[in-house]
Formats: sequence, structure tokens, C-alpha cells
Amino acid sequence: MIDKLITKIKKTGAPIVVGLDPMLNYIPEQIKKDAYQEFGETLEGAAEAIWQYNKGIVDEVYDLIPAVKPQIAMYEQFGIPGLVAYKRTIDYCKSKGLVVIGDIKRGDIGSTSTAYAVGHLGKVQVGRKSYAGFDEDFATVNPYLGTDGVKPFVDVCKEEKKGIFVLVKTSNPSSGEFQDRLIDKRPLYEWVGEKVDQWGKDAVGKEGYSYVGAVVGATYPEMGKVLRKLMPKTFILVPGYGAQGGKGKDLVHFFNKDGLGAIVNSSRGIIAAYKQEKYASFGEEGYAQASRQAVKDMILDISTALEGR
Amino acid sequence: MIDKLITKIKKTGAPIVVGLDPMLNYIPEQIKKDAYQEFGETLEGAAEAIWQYNKGIVDEVYDLIPAVKPQIAMYEQFGIPGLVAYKRTIDYCKSKGLVVIGDIKRGDIGSTSTAYAVGHLGKVQVGRKSYAGFDEDFATVNPYLGTDGVKPFVDVCKEEKKGIFVLVKTSNPSSGEFQDRLIDKRPLYEWVGEKVDQWGKDAVGKEGYSYVGAVVGATYPEMGKVLRKLMPKTFILVPGYGAQGGKGKDLVHFFNKDGLGAIVNSSRGIIAAYKQEKYASFGEEGYAQASRQAVKDMILDISTALEGR
Repeated sequence: MIDKLITKIKKTGAPIVVGLDPMLNYIPEQIKKDAYQEFGETLEGAAEAIWQYNKGIVDEVYDLIPAVKPQIAMYEQFGIPGLVAYKRTIDYCKSKGLVVIGDIKRGDIGSTSTAYAVGHLGKVQVGRKSYAGFDEDFATVNPYLGTDGVKPFVDVCKEEKKGIFVLVKTSNPSSGEFQDRLIDKRPLYEWVGEKVDQWGKDAVGKEGYSYVGAVVGATYPEMGKVLRKLMPKTFILVPGYGAQGGKGKDLVHFFNKDGLGAIVNSSRGIIAAYKQEKYASFGEEGYAQASRQAVKDMILDISTALEGR
Repeated sequence: MIDKLITKIKKTGAPIVVGLDPMLNYIPEQIKKDAYQEFGETLEGAAEAIWQYNKGIVDEVYDLIPAVKPQIAMYEQFGIPGLVAYKRTIDYCKSKGLVVIGDIKRGDIGSTSTAYAVGHLGKVQVGRKSYAGFDEDFATVNPYLGTDGVKPFVDVCKEEKKGIFVLVKTSNPSSGEFQDRLIDKRPLYEWVGEKVDQWGKDAVGKEGYSYVGAVVGATYPEMGKVLRKLMPKTFILVPGYGAQGGKGKDLVHFFNKDGLGAIVNSSRGIIAAYKQEKYASFGEEGYAQASRQAVKDMILDISTALEGR
């Protein structure tokens, strides 16, 4: 799947991923009105609004981008109906040829991580049959429990030709609280990065990159520079662009000289673009076209920065 | 909710929690056969088998114990139908008066953690109405992202009178890989423990314990001893008893002198007790009665150890 991701990045010229993290206050009133009319102001109504909103955006941007990253929390907050919308979004994006990165940040002790890995990336056995529960292409994984919490995901990835991105240095303001603490003179995130490199050593695709990727926030470009060198075969998923403060020029060090090795996520900056002054002329009814324009602008920002380095 | 948990621990004399972590190979053949007959060998069939299995156990043990801890991964692996069984299990356990600890190990950047907190412990707004998506009483939380990833859970707990248990030192073999690394001469888990103590400072219930608890594995009793002192007002959820190797005598240091301060989880050792030689005489059809006996034995093991200290 890392090879498919790279092929699509090359084809689109866009090392970017659109974060499908819908919030009800991003969704145009008319979409909500229609959904509530059909299902009431219920969890089902909210889920329908989210799904219609996502579909509108995906239909407008799928030809420009290689991948999407739905954040499962934004669906899980609406309980079961929300998770049905999550699954529907995954399936629809895959039908459009997009690579789907499930931003699930799961991680547990061995046998439990196996269940998560099977549910999101693999197949679960029921009697003589087997089923894919969620069937994302990639998933994000939390490393706090160490190797035996991550290894089950790697095993399923090898079997199913899928991939993971392990949290190394997250984009949020307090990520440094534990991640930056020095252990033998090096910050924890470097030790995690080193493990990510090891976990992926025997899981390298044809393009030379490992199935075992890393998450490193755009908001910490200097750390990205160090981690890029520490994990040469690791694809880096970079959140924090746009709304969280990261800019194209901050991102160049996350990429290798081949122009690959990183994929930059923007969520709110794309899916709620119509709420920004810059894209206000699209109006609520043109929210998906605003997203399309924001994707184009993001691609230009990053490619300009990469060319200029 | 921490007060309700403590009241129930006192009433039952059982500082234990039963982990409802069903695996299909734990479930008696007859239950699976009935479920597959009705729903086929499908995700729905598996979910029905899990639900019937859980219900059988809960009906036999609910009067002996204060709480249950369903591990969401074991349900999530069966996709949406699995999560429906998770929700059904929560609701049923609550109807039986049990405190429900959702072992979800979520944690993300601020706004995303808010969505998880709302979905599992709080209520989400849809138009003029609000709904509880999963509605557990407690949830487990991963601290790797630092304060701004944990704080949203604490905020929802205060509002809803619920609680969390933050992963400090997990029970698995490789938990030490990062958690034990020394930072300024103290292991990472102590730094996390100190934060847990701080996060809970202004969220203390009537019984003197905080809504913000900690997870510390039974498999590391010496570390439990240190953490107990470091977090005097923190309730400790202790996994790893039984099948993972922890024994009653390992657990005494997790408790305060008041006999409170900890709640010990056993999953497989209780719910699949009938598969152990010790309880084999119950047979498959007596699986739930075997669980009841295993609960009684666990209570005796722990209370004997506590009295003998």
C-alpha cells in the first residue's frame, strides 16, 4: 500500500492528504437541514449530514489528491451512527481510488493490538468466513506501550499489504511534555523514531519506503529535520499544516531529496475552506468548490517550497 | 462516579473489575451455533454470540462485583456490529447497577480528544438536542500527547461526574521500552504519574479520591509501590492479574492503608474460567457459573493478601 500511495503521489504531484474531520459547525446549513428533515435532530441525522458533506468534498477533490485521512474521533463522538458514516466514508473514498489513512491512534497490549489491527487493516475470522471490519489502507498507531503493542499492526500490514503511521512527535502544543524529555541526552521522540525505523526494516516496498511510517507534526520543523535523517526509509505523515500553523516552507525538511518521504495533512484548512475570508466568495453552497481551490493552493504552496529548497 | 465506584467496592468487599474482553474462542460452541443459526457466520452473528456470552456472565456475577471493563478492541474488530454489541453490553451492565470502565485507550490532540471525551463520557449536541454516544462511566486514556490531549477528558469528567484512568505503567512485557527510560534519573512512568496526580488535583470526590485515575500493571508490583506513594489521591486500575501473571500478594502495594485506592482487573481468568483445569467441572454449559466461582476465588485471594499485609 505504501507503493500505491507513492505512485499516486507521483501521479498527482501532490504529497498531500485531506483530513476528513467533520465538525457539525463546518457543515453548510442546507445539508444539515436536509439531513435533520429526513432523520430528525438525532445521531442518525448528524451522521447523514457528515456523510453528505464528506461526499460533496470528495467528489470535488479526489482527482487532485492521493489520499484522505478521516479522523475516527469526529465520527465516534456520534456513537454507532457516526461510525457507520466513518465506514461509509472509507468505502466511498476507496471507490474513488483514494488511499485511506484511518486516523485512529490505537495501541494496546499485544493481543488487544491484534484485535485493533485485524478490525481496521485486516480480516477477522467468523466460523469458516472472514470479514474486514473497517478496511482502511493505513492506520495511525500510538507507541506508548512499546514493541509488543505495535508489532501486531506490522504483522497484519505485511499480510494484507497495508501500512501504519506511528506517532513520533505530535503537532499539538503540549506534545513536548513527554515526547521532548531527554533520555541519555536524546529526546524521547528520537528513541521512538529509531524504533519506528527498526520496526519497518523488513517491511520495505518496491519504492524503497517502509510500510511502517511515522507521524511528525508540521509545527516542529527542526525536529522533522532530525527525524528525517534518523528514519531514512520511513514515510512521514505530517499533520499541523494550515489551521494549526504549519506553512509550506516549514515542510521541506520532512521530504527526502527524491521529493518523496512525506505526506502533509490539512483538515480544517481544506474541508472548511469556505469559512476563510480567502474563499468566502464560494459561499456555503460552494463549500466543496472552495475545498478544491484550497487543495490547489496547498499543492502550489508545498511544491513551490520544495522547488525552492 | 469515583464515589459510586468506591461505595460499590465497600459494599461488595471486592476491589475487582471483570474485563469483558470476549474472544470467539472463549465462547461456548452452543452459543456460537445459536447465533450463527440466526445471523449466519457474519459479523452480526459474531456480535450476537459475544453479546449472549457477556450477558450470561454478567447475570451470574453482577451481585459480587462493583464494575466491569469491556475492552473496546475486542468488539471493534467485528466492525459496526461488534460496536453495537459493545454498546449493548455497556447499557446492560449499567442496568444491573455496575460501573462501566470503557477500556478505550484513546488520546489525541486537544480538539480531537474532546470528540472522544464527548463520545464516550459526555453528550454531543445535534441541533437543539444532545445525545450520549457510548456513555461509559470511566474511560482509559493514553497520555503520550501530553496535557492538552488529556485535559478535554478531565473537563468532560467534571461536567458529567465521570472519570478516567490514564495509562502510566502498562502490564505488557515491552511496556518498559519507553515507559521505564530514565529522564533526570526518574523513569518516564513516574513523570506521567506525577502529571496524573496534578491533572486530578481539583477533581477530588467526597471519598478523597480523584476522578483522574491511573493504569499500573499488576505485573510490576515494585513500580506500583512507588507510584502509590507518588499519587496518593489517585485510584489505580490494575490490569495483568491472573492470566498475565499477577497474583494477590503482588497487589497489596497498589492499595492505600484504607484498603482503597486500587481496583484489580481480570479478564480471561474470569470470563474463560471454564477453560482452566481448576474450573473444568463446570463444563461449557456452566461457563457463567465457572466465572462466578473464579470471581469468588479472586476476591478471596486479594482480601487474604490485604489482610495479611
